[in-house]
Amino acid sequence: MGKKVEIYEVGPRDGFQSVSCGQIPTGVKIDIIGRIVESGVKHIEYTSFVSPKAIPQLADAAEVTRAVMEKYPEIDLFPLVPNKHGAGAAYNLGLRRAVNVVSLSASHNKANINRTHEQSLNAYIEIKQAYPDLDLIIDLATAFGCPFEGKFNEPEKVAEFLVDYVEAGMTTCCLCDTVGIADPAQTKALLSILKNSFPNLDLMVHFHDTRGAGLANTLTSIEMGVNKVQAALGGLGGCPFAPGASGNLSSEDLVWILNEMGYETEISFESLLSAAKYQAGVVQGAYSGHQINIQNK
Amino acid sequence: MGKKVEIYEVGPRDGFQSVSCGQIPTGVKIDIIGRIVESGVKHIEYTSFVSPKAIPQLADAAEVTRAVMEKYPEIDLFPLVPNKHGAGAAYNLGLRRAVNVVSLSASHNKANINRTHEQSLNAYIEIKQAYPDLDLIIDLATAFGCPFEGKFNEPEKVAEFLVDYVEAGMTTCCLCDTVGIADPAQTKALLSILKNSFPNLDLMVHFHDTRGAGLANTLTSIEMGVNKVQAALGGLGGCPFAPGASGNLSSEDLVWILNEMGYETEISFESLLSAAKYQAGVVQGAYSGHQINIQNK
Repeated sequence: MGKKVEIYEVGPRDGFQSVSCGQIPTGVKIDIIGRIVESGVKHIEYTSFVSPKAIPQLADAAEVTRAVMEKYPEIDLFPLVPNKHGAGAAYNLGLRRAVNVVSLSASHNKANINRTHEQSLNAYIEIKQAYPDLDLIIDLATAFGCPFEGKFNEPEKVAEFLVDYVEAGMTTCCLCDTVGIADPAQTKALLSILKNSFPNLDLMVHFHDTRGAGLANTLTSIEMGVNKVQAALGGLGGCPFAPGASGNLSSEDLVWILNEMGYETEISFESLLSAAKYQAGVVQGAYSGHQINIQNK
Repeated sequence: MGKKVEIYEVGPRDGFQSVSCGQIPTGVKIDIIGRIVESGVKHIEYTSFVSPKAIPQLADAAEVTRAVMEKYPEIDLFPLVPNKHGAGAAYNLGLRRAVNVVSLSASHNKANINRTHEQSLNAYIEIKQAYPDLDLIIDLATAFGCPFEGKFNEPEKVAEFLVDYVEAGMTTCCLCDTVGIADPAQTKALLSILKNSFPNLDLMVHFHDTRGAGLANTLTSIEMGVNKVQAALGGLGGCPFAPGASGNLSSEDLVWILNEMGYETEISFESLLSAAKYQAGVVQGAYSGHQINIQNK
């Protein structure tokens, strides 16, 4: 109790790429990011430097970046960069932190980013070499299971998989439950092995709420010592290349319960809920959080 | 791990009284109860012996009772009885287990059953005296907070409140989070105090998922040693006299995760999910579980 937990908001990246309401105007995106900042959130994965052909919803990455860097210089704003090209675009705009993705499942890695595991590792190393002062987080997608290969119950294989990344300089790894299939026992087992294998590695978690266990898994991770947890405003999110995946754990639901439990999030629940409601209007009612429903009654 | 957890299904009582699709035909209710039994559930709160004026949805309590007692003599089927009249009706049909309700919140007790705390205690004692061999569970409604009085953060007051009931012969108490406002830290604190105060009292829990924390609170209770947990098929439920309350934790969501975590529920998730899907059709799409959504994709 009284322990600090840092919320990493991923809705503007993971959510805005997934909504089916079409293109969200750039100004509205910046407005939503601003409302998130005002609630006290200090870490935001706010866009992706990806091919606009692959994800047209985030084609305004550079414009959003310029605006939010100017408005919120004190906030940890970082984008997703799938490759050296995207990393360069982010770096040249002044960013010094980004996230790169690899999927533990070989079949999902192929479906999601059309790469073998070797190609993914090489891309990571290439970015690290080109931009040595870019803090490059690894998002380990499908860390708990995959839409094609089912649930992963051999946590030691996750540790083996990460060795190459740790040797290549990874300092932060986010374990992503892309399809929302994790359970607290599995989460405990995986975190326990990774903490033993890589005592200096900073671990973050990202749970989807597909089977309703996002909160339970996140709280279990916090009990296991993880103090950086991802969530998305309004529970937006999903993966276009992971059939059956649904939204992320909702940030406002998570902040409410952490504040209730006495954790220090330094985030105003009321203010975050208000941002979620505003966003729900923008994305034509797409949300999966619980608190929005209560407060509307 | 490997520990036995008993699921107490409450949908046919807590859910069927709340659905807005109108009267569910008696035969369909019996059919749904049958599907729940077939999945391996052994404890079902299946109806209420209440005034048909107050809750017309359950006016067929006697008819349902006769049918399910004949079909499933090996199953622990118990109804809710608000008073001696209802208890007598249940007893005379051959039932020897029932549940009686009192709300920790005086204002909710008045709104829900129109009684003072003293009147509720007297009703409990009256039933116990009239039917000494009726095993009478107490459902402690609003044990964690109330729609009118907010969250309850003084667990020692809950222990004080229960003393009279323990002295009157209560052997099982179900802590009900009627408005879904509990958090795992509060749950831990309350269970810890009650286990210390009443080492021989059998504790059960019942969490609504209003704020998305039903599963986390239930898993926390199990970690604290509670091995009887309530849930409702399809996440149905709510309280007509608790503004803002939403559905119960969904039984199929709970069973999935308990089975995944290695707990012994002796329930087939697939079979329970199939029952939930059938029920969702009957109640015109009313459900709040997560698993139904995934499997329909």
